[in-house]
Amino acid sequence: MAHVTGEQLKRFSVRVFEKLGIPTKDAEITAEILVAADLRGIDSHGVARLPIYAKRLKLGLINKNPDIKVVRDRPGAAIVDGDNGLGQVVSYKAMSLCLEKAREHGIAAVGVRNSNHFGIGAYYAMMALKEDMIGLVATNASPLMAPFGGKVPLLGTNPLAIAIPAGTQYPVVLDMATSLVPRGKIEIAARKGEKIPLGWAIDKDGRPTQEPEEALKGTLLPMGGPKGYGLALVLDILCGVLSGAAFGGNVGSLFGDLDRPQNVGHFMLAIDVNSFRPLTEFKNTMDSLILSIKNSEPAEGVKELFLPGEIEYIKTKERAEKGFELNPVVAQNLLDLAREVGIAGSETTVETLFA
Amino acid sequence: MAHVTGEQLKRFSVRVFEKLGIPTKDAEITAEILVAADLRGIDSHGVARLPIYAKRLKLGLINKNPDIKVVRDRPGAAIVDGDNGLGQVVSYKAMSLCLEKAREHGIAAVGVRNSNHFGIGAYYAMMALKEDMIGLVATNASPLMAPFGGKVPLLGTNPLAIAIPAGTQYPVVLDMATSLVPRGKIEIAARKGEKIPLGWAIDKDGRPTQEPEEALKGTLLPMGGPKGYGLALVLDILCGVLSGAAFGGNVGSLFGDLDRPQNVGHFMLAIDVNSFRPLTEFKNTMDSLILSIKNSEPAEGVKELFLPGEIEYIKTKERAEKGFELNPVVAQNLLDLAREVGIAGSETTVETLFA
Repeated sequence: MAHVTGEQLKRFSVRVFEKLGIPTKDAEITAEILVAADLRGIDSHGVARLPIYAKRLKLGLINKNPDIKVVRDRPGAAIVDGDNGLGQVVSYKAMSLCLEKAREHGIAAVGVRNSNHFGIGAYYAMMALKEDMIGLVATNASPLMAPFGGKVPLLGTNPLAIAIPAGTQYPVVLDMATSLVPRGKIEIAARKGEKIPLGWAIDKDGRPTQEPEEALKGTLLPMGGPKGYGLALVLDILCGVLSGAAFGGNVGSLFGDLDRPQNVGHFMLAIDVNSFRPLTEFKNTMDSLILSIKNSEPAEGVKELFLPGEIEYIKTKERAEKGFELNPVVAQNLLDLAREVGIAGSETTVETLFA
Repeated sequence: MAHVTGEQLKRFSVRVFEKLGIPTKDAEITAEILVAADLRGIDSHGVARLPIYAKRLKLGLINKNPDIKVVRDRPGAAIVDGDNGLGQVVSYKAMSLCLEKAREHGIAAVGVRNSNHFGIGAYYAMMALKEDMIGLVATNASPLMAPFGGKVPLLGTNPLAIAIPAGTQYPVVLDMATSLVPRGKIEIAARKGEKIPLGWAIDKDGRPTQEPEEALKGTLLPMGGPKGYGLALVLDILCGVLSGAAFGGNVGSLFGDLDRPQNVGHFMLAIDVNSFRPLTEFKNTMDSLILSIKNSEPAEGVKELFLPGEIEYIKTKERAEKGFELNPVVAQNLLDLAREVGIAGSETTVETLFA
């Protein structure tokens, strides 16, 4: 087992990216965003993804030195062409531009094309918090869900992240995919030989299934049936169609499509709170809403109510203070990667890797 | 049975509102929006609501001559104070302002406070379509849903409507509440003595229930558990907290609270497509996305796939061409209302009411 700190993981990730030819500043941004996922407890989107990013970089499927450009520019609107750079580098720049524009006009949106997998949407949405703004960030993704009534996956799980500042309470940070569950949950059930609940997925003929193996050959179901389908579609339009990125069934898969760039599209929106309501009033009202929920009576069998993002804030605090155990498989994969790119010798072990 | 046309219903509704003291122009706006719901097949939100609006007007709970004001104004942002006017009148003005601002800056948002029940959100979102913009409109509502893990209703079903223009295809129009089902579905099950599926609602102790009577004493469940809860909360913040309207458990109920104004809050966003992507390109791409879904293979047992809003476009066309049958109970209620406000004599029947 490897006990690590966020700082160690960041340092390590920066070195890996540098070895892969990413400029230091971009390596730092990407490492910061990956490790933010680990700190939040979203391990699936953290450093566990380093190997696949490395693979795509080595295959030339991601541009190491992208010329990220604003290709359309209005007072409150812009399109950023990511030139196939790392999703994190492209998105960090795009959200920074969005915040700048929102400061001036009260609200702004930026569409992004020619990008890649960007990690957790919450990171970019949360960039708005420091500016006392509300951030909304969405991305499209490779097709895993059929439209409602269909069986052909034409939609990604297209996640949506929204961050809203509060006063003394934690900000509200919602970060959710539009499928009822992630595909990973079905993979876990398959490995354990367990059935899955109806409503998670359909088989390849579009029939409801409780067999994980059949579900994996079929497609995920959206949350709330036609509602989740509608949301996933709208987000695909905002991310893909409005920006000029890939959309529908055409977004490249991070893992699956090792012969072409992903051309992921993102949509970013920033709302300057003070342009709508005096900031202190807003923050006090947020606190009172949050506390009304925290103090409301839990349902039978429930100990405590949580606001969206609260658990991740608690986890981040805990992991930032004490560090955390890296999953042994992930740690081994990182060791293999480190050896491959030449930042670890054959004598290096998982235990000494991040020192 | 009363066979009616949209025009007849509009004329009738205008007369009722005028009799209740609403200025003609405002009466026409409100009638137009109510009847739009009927034409779309959303009968629950159409003229069936005339009696409750009339009741609130007569009780002085809605301001007949509101002084609707922009109380905060930035290039892409504004807050509109509805002065407790009819939700339709207030929202029509607010969305018009939002579209005007978006034309200039590429994107704009308007928050609304001191408003009332506004009918179907889709109407305002669709106002954006004529301007080749994307419209997003949300409202908060009186509490019917508990936060995830709770049992006290602190959130409305807070619906969200999004309208996106297309080329030769119907625009995409999503209009959905954040609860898995509307309360009305549970009331219907109760009347029929049928059980309801798990997942629709919890009883007053927060326990899952299949008994509609217990569910009606409890609260609705959000779609997708914590996801729908998060969405409902975020929409409440945008509609209520950002605008300075009521929020959380405090939004007045259209039917239940006959002793105070509702103070409903709305949030409206308009995105000028051409500020992001050349309009023709966007529309062509929309068509190709829509057709890829229409032409994709349906799941077993499904005949045809529909885009969000497509069924309502078809219904509107059909009802606008041929008229439609008004529900007999609704028709009788309207006759009673017409007699009450003095636009129908005692000899008037449901059959002759709308002539």
